[in-house]
Amino acid sequence: MVNLKYELKYQDKNTKARYGILHMARGSYETPIFMPVGTQGTVKTLSPEEVKACGAGIILANTYHLWLRPGADIVEKAGGLHPFMNYDRPILTDSGGFQVFSLAKKKDIKEEGVYFKSHIDGSSLFLSPEESIAIQNKLGADIIMSFDECPPYPVTYEYMKTSVERTLRWAKRGKKVHANTKQALFGIVQGGAFSDLRKWSAEETVKLDFDGYAIGGVSVGEDEVTKYQMIDAAVSYLPPDKPRYLMGVGDPVDIIEAVIRGVDMFDCVLPTRLARHGNALTKTGKINLRNAKYKEDFTSLEDNCSCYACKHYSKAYIRHLLISKETLGGRLLSIHNIYFLIKLTDELKEAIKENRLLEYRDEFITSWYNKR
Amino acid sequence: MVNLKYELKYQDKNTKARYGILHMARGSYETPIFMPVGTQGTVKTLSPEEVKACGAGIILANTYHLWLRPGADIVEKAGGLHPFMNYDRPILTDSGGFQVFSLAKKKDIKEEGVYFKSHIDGSSLFLSPEESIAIQNKLGADIIMSFDECPPYPVTYEYMKTSVERTLRWAKRGKKVHANTKQALFGIVQGGAFSDLRKWSAEETVKLDFDGYAIGGVSVGEDEVTKYQMIDAAVSYLPPDKPRYLMGVGDPVDIIEAVIRGVDMFDCVLPTRLARHGNALTKTGKINLRNAKYKEDFTSLEDNCSCYACKHYSKAYIRHLLISKETLGGRLLSIHNIYFLIKLTDELKEAIKENRLLEYRDEFITSWYNKR
Repeated sequence: MVNLKYELKYQDKNTKARYGILHMARGSYETPIFMPVGTQGTVKTLSPEEVKACGAGIILANTYHLWLRPGADIVEKAGGLHPFMNYDRPILTDSGGFQVFSLAKKKDIKEEGVYFKSHIDGSSLFLSPEESIAIQNKLGADIIMSFDECPPYPVTYEYMKTSVERTLRWAKRGKKVHANTKQALFGIVQGGAFSDLRKWSAEETVKLDFDGYAIGGVSVGEDEVTKYQMIDAAVSYLPPDKPRYLMGVGDPVDIIEAVIRGVDMFDCVLPTRLARHGNALTKTGKINLRNAKYKEDFTSLEDNCSCYACKHYSKAYIRHLLISKETLGGRLLSIHNIYFLIKLTDELKEAIKENRLLEYRDEFITSWYNKR
Repeated sequence: MVNLKYELKYQDKNTKARYGILHMARGSYETPIFMPVGTQGTVKTLSPEEVKACGAGIILANTYHLWLRPGADIVEKAGGLHPFMNYDRPILTDSGGFQVFSLAKKKDIKEEGVYFKSHIDGSSLFLSPEESIAIQNKLGADIIMSFDECPPYPVTYEYMKTSVERTLRWAKRGKKVHANTKQALFGIVQGGAFSDLRKWSAEETVKLDFDGYAIGGVSVGEDEVTKYQMIDAAVSYLPPDKPRYLMGVGDPVDIIEAVIRGVDMFDCVLPTRLARHGNALTKTGKINLRNAKYKEDFTSLEDNCSCYACKHYSKAYIRHLLISKETLGGRLLSIHNIYFLIKLTDELKEAIKENRLLEYRDEFITSWYNKR
């Protein structure tokens, strides 16, 4: 039996939003959930204890990166990702597909898989549905993903149709070779900005009976209206008894809008990437701590925030660390930003349970765009 | 009354080594003690909680760096270094002298002080005994240092004699303006590799009656024999009822040899600097984790080490972090290296109490040079 069961606890009356619980061997986690990203087997600048102190349950790791470095065999010899990186809560690995299409060089997409060159040393590599599953089996995450093509935006209808068909054939091949029944396997809905392809991709992927369904290829450059239509078009055809995961989306407003449309799971590098550039997420929008106006600001990043950074440090100190190129600065901002997004999903759960999700959205957006 | 009292608990029978306790407003700390360095108001890559978990009591911060950035006034407005950097144990600030002589550009040493240009932006600056004390009063450390000249090695006898005389006059001027009696003030013995100048510097500095005495200008390029002679020449003329602090020395063998010669306090950037370059301190010498031989080494950095890094991570994982440029790698090595030096001083205390310090030295050195 696969170690994942989605329990729908409460369906919002006014929207498609839902509050649920993901039951897994490494614990039960409420949804909507934000999953921090540990690309190379570490959430950038943070220890696993810090990630957990931010309230994190499931975290992500990237198959493409770990396959290239240190290599799937080394992670397997270490006993899998959990002992290797010292994280005892659930881990999700992606298929490597997205990174092949976004990072790798000289890609050649064939029916059997993708030939490409490593972004690290230029060496020739090949990734297929079977190879992706084999690597993910070695990495040993709790949730693994089907190998898919994530086309750029925009592409022609014809290209996207061909791509969705291939991704479906790849999903079948991957499912066939996935032997480790302890790892849940998710299918991925593609289809770009074409509603009928999203519908078709969702329906056909659901027929293959995965443990959960992801929506890929969203937030790749399209406008806001299109983005939300793509989510709507996919979620409408996904079953209510399985979790729905919107890949790579972490903008707070996008998370709220996607939850309203029935999405349960999110991941994004946004909180750690913003931190690296000196930014903190606050209810009144992003602020950049490098700004000279924080030089003598001895208040915390955000009022009433209970994260480690806000409990112990001032904007002035964090600014000093950033200006002085001290790594603790980015670390404190990473903690705050991850805590912020996890707290956002906690507030969304409460709002769903109390039937005030749309009011919450309006309040959040009013505050978010009312920049200081 | 000054918040520092040295209590001599046990004088080694075979050497000049001693076990004691430094009683301060922020707690009592046993000596010999290793003090990690937080140059810019943060021990590089670590949180204050991690520094304390390594066993640290007193830590250092650098007056020169904090004066330039963020500025002494900002730290004062924050309530001093302790709340600014979130460290509630004692802090020691140096005088800024050493950095002026090692980092700053276009130095012009006059009787009134030193004119120089900032290493950050080239701006013209002036540091004097009075200004150094005024800055350190604002930073608010528990122990502050006299402003001294630290000449390079080697210099002529004449130069060193003139320098020691000036450093003595500077020590008097600094002591005169030090108004904040909550901060202990240490004098600094200079004199380079000239035993008679070390003796004279020690005797004259002691006459000024400081709360403790530092030995400066050691480990600046001289050979091992000279180094230990310089320590001997200084310590012999320091009073038994005051702490003795050897500035900037953190090599494990040097610490042992200096403890044998009667030194109580040490600071050095060595553990964090080694970490930045991928090195771990072990009883069998330094090892570099970037080495390919650790690629599949799933053992901890050191057997029987109880530091956070050794309890949870393998050499293979730390190597992966270093190769992948993930900051957690340097952080884990910093934790291990600081823990290593603090544990060394703990073992030295035990060896002193049990009258087996020389045996401990021999065992340590045999293991240290018996590299793997």
